[in-house]
Amino acid sequence: MELLQETGYQYIEGGVCAANGFVANGCHCGLHPDPNKNDLGIVYSEQVCHAAAVYTTNKVKGAPILVTQKNLAAAAGCARAVIVNSKNANTCNADGEEKARKMCELTAKELGIRPEEVIVASTGVIGQTLPIEPIASGIAPLVSGMSPKRHGQAAAAIMTTDTVKKEVAVAFDLDGKTCRLGGMAKGSGMIHPNMATTLNFITTDAAVSHAMLQKALSDVVKVTYNCLSVDGDTSTNDMVCVLANGLAGNTEITEENEAYETFKKALYLVMLHMTKMLAADGEGASKLLTCKCSGAPDADTATAVAKSVIRSPLVKSAMFGSDANCGRILCAAGYADAEFDVHKIDVSLVSKAGVIAVCADGNGITFSEEKAASVLAEDEIEIRINLNQGDGEATAWGCDLTYDYVKINADYRS
Amino acid sequence: MELLQETGYQYIEGGVCAANGFVANGCHCGLHPDPNKNDLGIVYSEQVCHAAAVYTTNKVKGAPILVTQKNLAAAAGCARAVIVNSKNANTCNADGEEKARKMCELTAKELGIRPEEVIVASTGVIGQTLPIEPIASGIAPLVSGMSPKRHGQAAAAIMTTDTVKKEVAVAFDLDGKTCRLGGMAKGSGMIHPNMATTLNFITTDAAVSHAMLQKALSDVVKVTYNCLSVDGDTSTNDMVCVLANGLAGNTEITEENEAYETFKKALYLVMLHMTKMLAADGEGASKLLTCKCSGAPDADTATAVAKSVIRSPLVKSAMFGSDANCGRILCAAGYADAEFDVHKIDVSLVSKAGVIAVCADGNGITFSEEKAASVLAEDEIEIRINLNQGDGEATAWGCDLTYDYVKINADYRS
Repeated sequence: MELLQETGYQYIEGGVCAANGFVANGCHCGLHPDPNKNDLGIVYSEQVCHAAAVYTTNKVKGAPILVTQKNLAAAAGCARAVIVNSKNANTCNADGEEKARKMCELTAKELGIRPEEVIVASTGVIGQTLPIEPIASGIAPLVSGMSPKRHGQAAAAIMTTDTVKKEVAVAFDLDGKTCRLGGMAKGSGMIHPNMATTLNFITTDAAVSHAMLQKALSDVVKVTYNCLSVDGDTSTNDMVCVLANGLAGNTEITEENEAYETFKKALYLVMLHMTKMLAADGEGASKLLTCKCSGAPDADTATAVAKSVIRSPLVKSAMFGSDANCGRILCAAGYADAEFDVHKIDVSLVSKAGVIAVCADGNGITFSEEKAASVLAEDEIEIRINLNQGDGEATAWGCDLTYDYVKINADYRS
Repeated sequence: MELLQETGYQYIEGGVCAANGFVANGCHCGLHPDPNKNDLGIVYSEQVCHAAAVYTTNKVKGAPILVTQKNLAAAAGCARAVIVNSKNANTCNADGEEKARKMCELTAKELGIRPEEVIVASTGVIGQTLPIEPIASGIAPLVSGMSPKRHGQAAAAIMTTDTVKKEVAVAFDLDGKTCRLGGMAKGSGMIHPNMATTLNFITTDAAVSHAMLQKALSDVVKVTYNCLSVDGDTSTNDMVCVLANGLAGNTEITEENEAYETFKKALYLVMLHMTKMLAADGEGASKLLTCKCSGAPDADTATAVAKSVIRSPLVKSAMFGSDANCGRILCAAGYADAEFDVHKIDVSLVSKAGVIAVCADGNGITFSEEKAASVLAEDEIEIRINLNQGDGEATAWGCDLTYDYVKINADYRS
């Protein structure tokens, strides 16, 4: 997958520890039956951070979400650590909040900080009691092994059905100081707008006020994670969280000035790439799908169309089969919750192998099936829709629907 | 699948020709490559009928939908015939309306009626030009072979990926006169609320005014087809249409009196059973899923929850795998577009093999995995959700998500 190159930004190694002052670790504490699978991860900042977060819009919220919300409120938007486990979502459990608070207390004690400075997250099966013992015995070695080099261990700890670790980081300048921003994400199934659609932890050494950090995150989420759909299911435990410790030494960003835009672009690049990685690694996915809608009466209409097409099981199945079924694309555009003239739509399919137009003025057109098949044989496909009635545009990301999606989800709990 | 038994209603044979005065036929005209697959169907009433219809809400509407709407308006809500083809949806074609009108003209000429008395429908691939020649040469033999016994041929003609013909009919009394109401439906994929979600043609010999017929249809559609979801894709060509020729001799129903309720119940029984047949025959389906939500603050909330759960790919995959994953049910209930308290939800799974409670007060509970597996091994599963916060209730129907759904849709056009 190609990284979007922008002048002034350089992709670097280091993931969630790319920024100065952050350490991390991951280990197998015993929640997962496979002793080689990390199931407990930590991120820690030597300096207190401003913290911003966005959460799932599902009414059924995981206990860790509720505890994190309370902690951030109690600590006035500051935090120093993230503790996260996989295999069990600690959601829809009678003792869920108690266990989530316990995770914060255990972590805080070991780190010598306050429990409300800890962000807690869990991902995995919903509705099964979380065993706290493995976590309680795992935290001490987890903390003692923390280092800037162990970011990959943390990234591995949050994986569930993910097949690849997801880490991205960039370096950029603010006031002549080098700043770094990087993160790790997990997510494969149960991914859909609207909300963070993933567990994603981002750290930066840039100095940014809590309010500006939250604003940047909320804005960027709209055009990245909220335009991502693997299966239409909005998870109960989704959270994106950004920690900023200010160690880069730039003048703190407290208003929407040029420095804010520079910082926000860095956040966008990292979250955009994470979004694409999540889509490409969607459960069972064999192809990354991008739907770009342009020419819409406004941006909201473009977003509605792009999301509707990327979500359609019929479009997703056709892409899996390399079938240039433009009717399904038009159909999905047609039931998008937005008003526009369907008689002006042009559609083409784009990949490294070329571009093929399949629809003009809302009607199917004749095209070379051979060329279409070669375009769709690639593993990154763009569905390009021009509504030809304005300047609104938007992009949404997703993946194809495959046998493996069904296989993975037919027996997820075992 | 068991039929819902109601006093005063008797299930009978005859499908779309069960009612007096209707004849039908189906044939292979040449649209489909398989000479044994009917691809052209007709229904005709010897007497002019009141006609009512509901159509897809997709903004991309098939040309036949547009022509039927115009015809019914021109004929003041009356009609005498239905002509319908499968294999090609005649949608998103530059010459679509012209071809649909041509189908009406050819049919009307052969029957000696006016073109605007013909309801036209097409189902199949979107965005490919409809060859009119096979239809033009097929209509004469189709008409000459019409008979009350050929209802099954018509029902076969509208099938696409359907694996079974869908016909239901009931007899009931109005004013001491025996009335009959029956129909045929097609639909397997691209099925989702909101709208008719299928092609469905219903005939009756009861005498009902156009206005009362439309009202009954619009009301019944809300609690039947509009609560059905196979894959979340709302088709471009969906239509439910009811023709009433009055030959039973009852006093015409012109207001919401007792006779209206009796008639509406007959329509409900036929459409309910069609809905369940469509769900059970959903593309690739191995199980019929019913989600009953009760105890909701109001009926709209119950409907939103039941539809959200029945649509979830994760719930559908789990049901395919006989996995009693209550977390996914709670998750899907939680992202339903409605407001309610998620901490009171009880969930149980029900089949012929028994009942198993999997969630109480919004939390997962311990249950016998062995019993759960035996309950879910059946081919008709009910997901029973009680929100415990009111009297609102609703039912939605769907099916599991299987390998075969992906297989069917990965290469639908060929």
